[in-house]
Amino acid sequence: MNSPETKTPAPVILTGDRPTGPLHLGHFVGSLRNRVAYQNEYRQFIMLADAQALTDNMDDTGKVHRNVVEVALDYLAVGIDPSQSTIFIQSQVPELAELTFYYLNLVTVARLERNPTVKTEIALRNFERDIPAGFLTYPVSQASDISAFKATLVPVGEDQIPMIEQCNEIVRRFNRLVNKDILVECKALVPEIGRLPGIDGKAKMSKSLGNTINLGDSEDQIRAAVKQVYTDPLHLKVSDPGHVEGNVAFLYLDAFDTDKAALEEMKAHYTRGGLGDSIVKKRLDLVLQEMLAPIRARREEFAQDKGQVLQMLKEGTMKAREVAAGTVDEVRRALGLSYF
Amino acid sequence: MNSPETKTPAPVILTGDRPTGPLHLGHFVGSLRNRVAYQNEYRQFIMLADAQALTDNMDDTGKVHRNVVEVALDYLAVGIDPSQSTIFIQSQVPELAELTFYYLNLVTVARLERNPTVKTEIALRNFERDIPAGFLTYPVSQASDISAFKATLVPVGEDQIPMIEQCNEIVRRFNRLVNKDILVECKALVPEIGRLPGIDGKAKMSKSLGNTINLGDSEDQIRAAVKQVYTDPLHLKVSDPGHVEGNVAFLYLDAFDTDKAALEEMKAHYTRGGLGDSIVKKRLDLVLQEMLAPIRARREEFAQDKGQVLQMLKEGTMKAREVAAGTVDEVRRALGLSYF
Repeated sequence: MNSPETKTPAPVILTGDRPTGPLHLGHFVGSLRNRVAYQNEYRQFIMLADAQALTDNMDDTGKVHRNVVEVALDYLAVGIDPSQSTIFIQSQVPELAELTFYYLNLVTVARLERNPTVKTEIALRNFERDIPAGFLTYPVSQASDISAFKATLVPVGEDQIPMIEQCNEIVRRFNRLVNKDILVECKALVPEIGRLPGIDGKAKMSKSLGNTINLGDSEDQIRAAVKQVYTDPLHLKVSDPGHVEGNVAFLYLDAFDTDKAALEEMKAHYTRGGLGDSIVKKRLDLVLQEMLAPIRARREEFAQDKGQVLQMLKEGTMKAREVAAGTVDEVRRALGLSYF
Repeated sequence: MNSPETKTPAPVILTGDRPTGPLHLGHFVGSLRNRVAYQNEYRQFIMLADAQALTDNMDDTGKVHRNVVEVALDYLAVGIDPSQSTIFIQSQVPELAELTFYYLNLVTVARLERNPTVKTEIALRNFERDIPAGFLTYPVSQASDISAFKATLVPVGEDQIPMIEQCNEIVRRFNRLVNKDILVECKALVPEIGRLPGIDGKAKMSKSLGNTINLGDSEDQIRAAVKQVYTDPLHLKVSDPGHVEGNVAFLYLDAFDTDKAALEEMKAHYTRGGLGDSIVKKRLDLVLQEMLAPIRARREEFAQDKGQVLQMLKEGTMKAREVAAGTVDEVRRALGLSYF
């Protein structure tokens, strides 16, 4: 006697950031913008992954602490609304560590060593044999983060898909073990717009590469950054035909200029020659200044009362704990770890 | 201006058992008897390591659950006094998982793989490449258990000393990292009396080998076990000279017979010949029956009100949580993970 109106539960999103530095245009394009849209449709949890950030910042824990509020300010500035999205601090939800503890029994060392994302990150950090155990096991920690909230959608880049697969393996293994569907599998939500390159043309905008434009940057900082934006190294004279592909100025305009018609015209002009980089950059500067000015203004406003930001984080964290504690309780009971 | 009466803090002991089966004479000799003595002198925490037991009992979680109360009954039966010793259930102190999470960043995978105790246990369990991550990382979990209570003494067998070293490495690494002596190093407390062999003469009394005499065994079970006790296979006729070394009956009498003079006489008689195994075993049966009767009686008494046992465990667990939470709070603050 199934009711035809049986509802499937609303999708739950888990997303977040490692609070190790200010968020930049790359974050904005790749995720922040989407979160502002998602929060209307989905139940969205946004995690400030301070505990995870420690895995490779144990030597600078102060940086992680400071950036928790800074990143929260970035969230508020771009329009993430704490009444629609639950923003929380990972370390303040100890239930996540507890799940990690149990999940560690559900995955082999060999399996973790085969994880392509972990492999890449290990190479990137020159860990070689001195991999901290917390680094090898961080897919397990991610599985805890995701499954604690029974998230069904996890926005990630293409390169993070193995983490999602690892999570689902743990979820299936757990459910099979306790013979009950307690945990929920999730899907990767890969954004349509790929990664934004750095202003220097490198594939990735990254604080450590010093090639970012940050959401909180001042007018002058933006202007200076735009001047440095990598264009077409073969476009020496204004009259020369220029290349649009790989030209960061145009890649940024593609991402942010809303006047698509004018942009296409500009591209055509640049390609046939006669359009100087300075004109393109002037347009880019205008577009970025217009887009970032209200974000910066909101950021500054929120920054005036950091106590209120902390209060918001506290409330979000309490809400998140409640959900995670519910899952931990189910997990513990299923494992027979319930006594009183 | 040091006061000459400055006191060093009282030693703190952490000890415990994996609740995977009833405790036996081996536990009694190797640890339970000592705990009854320690509780007068030291602050003693006794952990029912149910979460750790799961690392290799994920396929039989019910066994772990059942044995928590059974092992607690064994504790009470031998005279461990909950008003002097804090008995608690590991899984109900989630702070321990939280510490594990942080400590995982302080130890490398290579270091864990080199741990001799872990190596032996891996070989013992035929894990080979399919080692669950939770098994490889369990020295980190043990370091959490120990350091959460700032234990200074940890009763362990010789073979567990590498675990203590691993714990102290983590403690030192953490304190150096945060530049503050928050965690405390511990010492292994190796019991003078070594391991008790099984009734079959195998080096270790172990439930899985089926060669135990359990603390809760009935009179008949004890009698039957004593009959099977391995003696001297060359001692065929009563008149033959017998061997005392490696003779489990005498090893048990050494451990439990309080009439040392009579025992020495019996050994001499057995060695020169003319003393039958049946006489020796009769003595052993008498000694064990006398020792175990009051333990069994107390066990049965406590078992009549399992609700009260659970209440005792609940109170102990609450006390333990308070202590562990204090340490976690210090650890979190030192790592800059404190916001509200």
